[in-house]
Amino acid sequence: MKFHAAMMPCVSRYTGRMFQTRRFQHCPVCGGQIEYRIPADDNRERATCTVCGTIQYENPLNVVGTLPVWGDQVLLCRRAIEPRLGKWTLPAGFMELGETLAQGAQRETDEEAGVQIEMQDLYCVMNVVRVGQVHLFYRARMLAPDCDPGPETLEARLFHEHEVPWDELAFHTVRYALERFFEDRRRGQGFPLHTADIA
Amino acid sequence: MKFHAAMMPCVSRYTGRMFQTRRFQHCPVCGGQIEYRIPADDNRERATCTVCGTIQYENPLNVVGTLPVWGDQVLLCRRAIEPRLGKWTLPAGFMELGETLAQGAQRETDEEAGVQIEMQDLYCVMNVVRVGQVHLFYRARMLAPDCDPGPETLEARLFHEHEVPWDELAFHTVRYALERFFEDRRRGQGFPLHTADIA
Repeated sequence: MKFHAAMMPCVSRYTGRMFQTRRFQHCPVCGGQIEYRIPADDNRERATCTVCGTIQYENPLNVVGTLPVWGDQVLLCRRAIEPRLGKWTLPAGFMELGETLAQGAQRETDEEAGVQIEMQDLYCVMNVVRVGQVHLFYRARMLAPDCDPGPETLEARLFHEHEVPWDELAFHTVRYALERFFEDRRRGQGFPLHTADIA
Repeated sequence: MKFHAAMMPCVSRYTGRMFQTRRFQHCPVCGGQIEYRIPADDNRERATCTVCGTIQYENPLNVVGTLPVWGDQVLLCRRAIEPRLGKWTLPAGFMELGETLAQGAQRETDEEAGVQIEMQDLYCVMNVVRVGQVHLFYRARMLAPDCDPGPETLEARLFHEHEVPWDELAFHTVRYALERFFEDRRRGQGFPLHTADIA
């Protein structure tokens, strides 16, 4: 999961409960000065060009990934990049234009872990309001135990449940998805969709 | 569901299968000229400032809405705005920063239909790759049959299944969600999550 500087002003975009986004100083269309004001037909401040009047909207983004399973083991990747360099994550990243949620999740799995998978059902949908993201994870069946991690990953390996490095996980959403997976597996009644709001 | 011009260059952003997005001509940080080029650590063209080097990412957006139910009727809204002015839709719109998927769906329902609802489960997740959107609809139980539509809606009313104006629906995703709902209701075995890729 690669977080670009331009996409991660999120933590500082909040002051308490007040969301303060100030990504735009200049208009992407004409280069004119931006002011944040509430348009006539709206109820939120928007980046509005003082020259050409164009309005820029800023909205939450989807992070898509998989929970790859081989037998009774799950695959985790150790991050080679910030944030959370050195911590363990499920393969995931920002959904791109031109792809579906599942295609994005499969692409990220290929890029970060280099494993062959069969995509399964959408499994966890998690709001991370604080950073303006929705994380959507699919279960995936690994077709072979081999992996070939890309440059964003230090190492990728399979873990039995008792081996999972719970204190070394990169993101709360990764912990949530793994916890639900092991619970559902113990219960033995399938893997229903889980939704959650992650603080 | 309000589509702002700035968010809907989507249809023309594609040429056949090739996604061509050219939202940025100027850097939103410094106002410098933008070039679309592939960054060193990337594999896609990104809006890159020729002056300060800042990269702008463009990603799919979430449209969130509800399928409001009163008894055996569903609520639809007739659009007062383009696109699809005069056509019937479920209440929905772009997810905003600072809210969860469900909160956004409930807000849009309040803004467009003015109905009191109890939010239920996430019901349909639909990729609309052509326009760079994911549509996510929740089932909702209306707490009263009254509605008070906002300025984006000409009228809102309840429909029995045989009354639904199938040929006058605004969006394919609205049709998909309604079809699944009436099917699931006939089947009588609950309302599982449905996922689809909408052309």
